[in-house]
Amino acid sequence: VTAGTAAPAAWVNGEPLGEISVLDRGLHYADGLFETIACPHGAPRLLARHLARLTGGCARLHLPAPDPEQLSAEICAAAAGPSAIVKLIVSRGRALARGYAATGAESPTRIMLRYPWAGEDPSLGEAGVRVRIADLRLGENPALAGLKTLNRLEQVLARAEWHDPSIAESLLFSSSGTLVSGTMSNVFLVHQGRLSTPRLERCGVAGVMRALVSELAAACGIDCTERALTELELQAAQEVFLTNAVIGLRPVRELAGVTLAVGPVTRRLQQALAGRLHGTEGEHA
Amino acid sequence: VTAGTAAPAAWVNGEPLGEISVLDRGLHYADGLFETIACPHGAPRLLARHLARLTGGCARLHLPAPDPEQLSAEICAAAAGPSAIVKLIVSRGRALARGYAATGAESPTRIMLRYPWAGEDPSLGEAGVRVRIADLRLGENPALAGLKTLNRLEQVLARAEWHDPSIAESLLFSSSGTLVSGTMSNVFLVHQGRLSTPRLERCGVAGVMRALVSELAAACGIDCTERALTELELQAAQEVFLTNAVIGLRPVRELAGVTLAVGPVTRRLQQALAGRLHGTEGEHA
Repeated sequence: VTAGTAAPAAWVNGEPLGEISVLDRGLHYADGLFETIACPHGAPRLLARHLARLTGGCARLHLPAPDPEQLSAEICAAAAGPSAIVKLIVSRGRALARGYAATGAESPTRIMLRYPWAGEDPSLGEAGVRVRIADLRLGENPALAGLKTLNRLEQVLARAEWHDPSIAESLLFSSSGTLVSGTMSNVFLVHQGRLSTPRLERCGVAGVMRALVSELAAACGIDCTERALTELELQAAQEVFLTNAVIGLRPVRELAGVTLAVGPVTRRLQQALAGRLHGTEGEHA
Repeated sequence: VTAGTAAPAAWVNGEPLGEISVLDRGLHYADGLFETIACPHGAPRLLARHLARLTGGCARLHLPAPDPEQLSAEICAAAAGPSAIVKLIVSRGRALARGYAATGAESPTRIMLRYPWAGEDPSLGEAGVRVRIADLRLGENPALAGLKTLNRLEQVLARAEWHDPSIAESLLFSSSGTLVSGTMSNVFLVHQGRLSTPRLERCGVAGVMRALVSELAAACGIDCTERALTELELQAAQEVFLTNAVIGLRPVRELAGVTLAVGPVTRRLQQALAGRLHGTEGEHA
């Protein structure tokens, strides 16, 4: 999901600014978190879920969370107008001393970027995408697992493994050999009509779309479990699909060169998700 | 090693600036590297080693390395004057598109910070320091092992585990249970006169001072091996010491509440290091 090269609009701590201090701990230590929020037609989608994940992540990093009401207002202001993707970064703020230790007196930095967005290409949701398997394996750390931290160098290296634009994503295993996610998406497998997605207690990002799709599966009567998944279980899947907050749910039509059907569980969940995201019961705040 | 709260002098791409773009990939993805260079009396110490590690790290991250001659000149200019610590950050530069993929057209950002430095407290090298064992374990990733990347959130969390200022450092094990390093130092153990230090093929930072001390040990006729070290081997060590580019070599006098002698191998290497760093055969460029 790569937008054009036009610079996005930017705000720092609510002010229209394009720069931050060279002392920011986000830069020095990846000491912060981010959210990427799809904002179709001016409205931030799944905003409450994004804010809840951010606030929970701040607590786990002992980072004073910005006021969610203020964040919400700033995100809505950034989202106003044509469809956009709003990226929010919250770092621990300017370093007050040299070294890893925070003094506790740091003031978090809020960085908001607004990227123009044409919206999802419906043909990808219809036909599905081609996916490969990454060579890189993700390190495991329960202290960071589930969080959307600024520690993204593994994803950068994994994304640098391929240049073929017809391949949309790469699936990653962890250092201990279990399936985790794509570089920028979560993954679900279907075996005999049952849905599963990797447990994220040792690495990975607890995606807002992953959680929503799990809930929709339950509502549709589709059995869905979070568990450790092996390479063999990935190969044995009858259906595979990806999720993230921007792409929604995207079927995989080819995995490591093997053609996959876009099957009935995937289609049922796409339908349920479209109803949730575009229907009258939408969750827009 | 925490300096005061005065803001350091700062340069970005050679210009005296205190800010960088909110689009910098160093901030968004920790997509970059850093070096922390001790500069006693205006002279960057072990500069050639720092530059070699940075250049090697850039190659591994497929990040266009800044010209070493230019970096060297900028570091020397920043170091001029009273003793200082110069921190250099090199990131992949401003993101030209949204997403983890680099376009290849990015231009690296060089950030240089000059912190005043009173020099090492000789009493710490003499008496040694108190050290604890971290609860957090480091994730393992051979693709990042040895590099001094901006991915430092594990170190931030490990450093947040203690607040007792009489404890200088915390030793970390990896997710698979082998000894790696301190939060901001490397570690050496002595068993029956033989020196060992953790192999860093799955995590850790290949320290310039670690390499120098290993070479000095060889020159002194002290057997030194890099290998996988267990918690039992740590507990069985007769001597333990820490190294980094700023502290040099620092003996451990107490490990997890157990008193350790500052023994003959440690003292011999301190002497050799002092000769190298302060002697006429100094390696200052």
